[in-house]
Amino acid sequence: MPTFRERIAERTRLTGGCLCIGLDSEPDKLPREFLGPGDPQVEFNRAIIDATKDLTVCYKPNTAFYESRGAEGFAALEQTARYLHSLGIPAIADSKRGDIGNTARQYAKAFLETMPFNAVTVNPYMGEDAIAPVRDYPDAGIFVLCYTSNPSRVDLQTKTIRKEDGTTETMYQWVARRIRDWDTAKNLCAVVGATAPEELGDIRGILGPEIPILCPGIGAQGGDLEETLRQGQASLDGNIMVNVSRSVLFASKGKDFAEAARNEAARIVEQMRRYLGLR
Amino acid sequence: MPTFRERIAERTRLTGGCLCIGLDSEPDKLPREFLGPGDPQVEFNRAIIDATKDLTVCYKPNTAFYESRGAEGFAALEQTARYLHSLGIPAIADSKRGDIGNTARQYAKAFLETMPFNAVTVNPYMGEDAIAPVRDYPDAGIFVLCYTSNPSRVDLQTKTIRKEDGTTETMYQWVARRIRDWDTAKNLCAVVGATAPEELGDIRGILGPEIPILCPGIGAQGGDLEETLRQGQASLDGNIMVNVSRSVLFASKGKDFAEAARNEAARIVEQMRRYLGLR
Repeated sequence: MPTFRERIAERTRLTGGCLCIGLDSEPDKLPREFLGPGDPQVEFNRAIIDATKDLTVCYKPNTAFYESRGAEGFAALEQTARYLHSLGIPAIADSKRGDIGNTARQYAKAFLETMPFNAVTVNPYMGEDAIAPVRDYPDAGIFVLCYTSNPSRVDLQTKTIRKEDGTTETMYQWVARRIRDWDTAKNLCAVVGATAPEELGDIRGILGPEIPILCPGIGAQGGDLEETLRQGQASLDGNIMVNVSRSVLFASKGKDFAEAARNEAARIVEQMRRYLGLR
Repeated sequence: MPTFRERIAERTRLTGGCLCIGLDSEPDKLPREFLGPGDPQVEFNRAIIDATKDLTVCYKPNTAFYESRGAEGFAALEQTARYLHSLGIPAIADSKRGDIGNTARQYAKAFLETMPFNAVTVNPYMGEDAIAPVRDYPDAGIFVLCYTSNPSRVDLQTKTIRKEDGTTETMYQWVARRIRDWDTAKNLCAVVGATAPEELGDIRGILGPEIPILCPGIGAQGGDLEETLRQGQASLDGNIMVNVSRSVLFASKGKDFAEAARNEAARIVEQMRRYLGLR
């Protein structure tokens, strides 16, 4: 079986882009009147996936938008993962979990065994214990939060740390170095917001050219696509994925929502192809 | 309606102890042959709750142990919250989530509206954005991870940070100060591992005497109860909760599992009462 990294490299070359669509399918925003009779999140996700699947490297549902509905929503998340699995398209559970060893193992089981996701996002605050049990899945992708896209990332992530040799670095630089060191199974990846292109370039320098970086923050959050690709040293080897959520999912509230989503995704992929020298 | 803090203060005085039972009801460890015909996690939790409810301040299911079963497990989590709500006993969702603003709002909705939990645990890596939407629930409790109980907490939490005035402090001290500053709605709490009593004393000094601290790590993880109560300046005002999970839940694998759980819980509460001067 190819690894997660091999699969995203393959789909990057196949699509000529590096688009990840974030299936943040907020229940209150769904165009219910234009959906089929099944569960509204499942129906909406299927419509979006069917309309965009030849354009994307992968999909990334954020679990919050499903958990807010309770057990029903968790079932919709599970069904979405199964649908993507049936199509052979990589799926990232954006769960941002992180806990002590025996608990982190249960989270890994939840997303990589019970639900057929291929990758998860992990929060590094509790250290390597939170990451080790997920790293035991050699074919999976483990995206460690490094420098996030939100304004209050500065609260912890840009803090200056004093190293043992007396020099200093920021917390996100320290996390980036850990991601590189912890990548013993060649399955770690990093999350770096597209809203901070300079820091992205800095982190790419620490990680080296190969470790895949997932960049949220294009679209509603205001990040610049071309600058993100440049600073991330995007190649056709699948070392960058740019995540777009709201601006694709809710491109139209009307009957044409899936078509509008496709048009918006195609517009972004076109820009990516141009940057990657394919057009 | 009394706030979460008022409710834990009331139950601390009522029980004379400060016990939180962690409902980390790992599916593979349940004594299924002695459970009723319903969902095994729900049946097990009910039996444990019924056997211990006069001894506890609150209960804290860690969501990982439910999510590992997928949607069925999430339904069991929801039912457990509803059962505790029906009994009027405070329940903490140990979810350790943390995300950007609009997503953190969905998590708050999941645990504090859709499911009737009274409190959640939150990871501070993404900063105040992850905490603000939960803080908007004035009657809830928001437990921010400060210094956790696991060995690799040293990866990030003990890092030395250089402050603007040139002095230094550790990351967990910085987080403790933020918890104090962010506590504008008087509903924040902290998580500090019982496996680090000195650091707990340090953090109590930063937080002041009132902000409740949840201390996991007694029992299987080896923390010392009396030292934890001393360093945490435990009072009958509900400023400390000591969490015990595995050593209570799995005190016996036999037919007497609930009775054995009660005996273990009673033994711990007896120690607490002795420390608090009630015996």
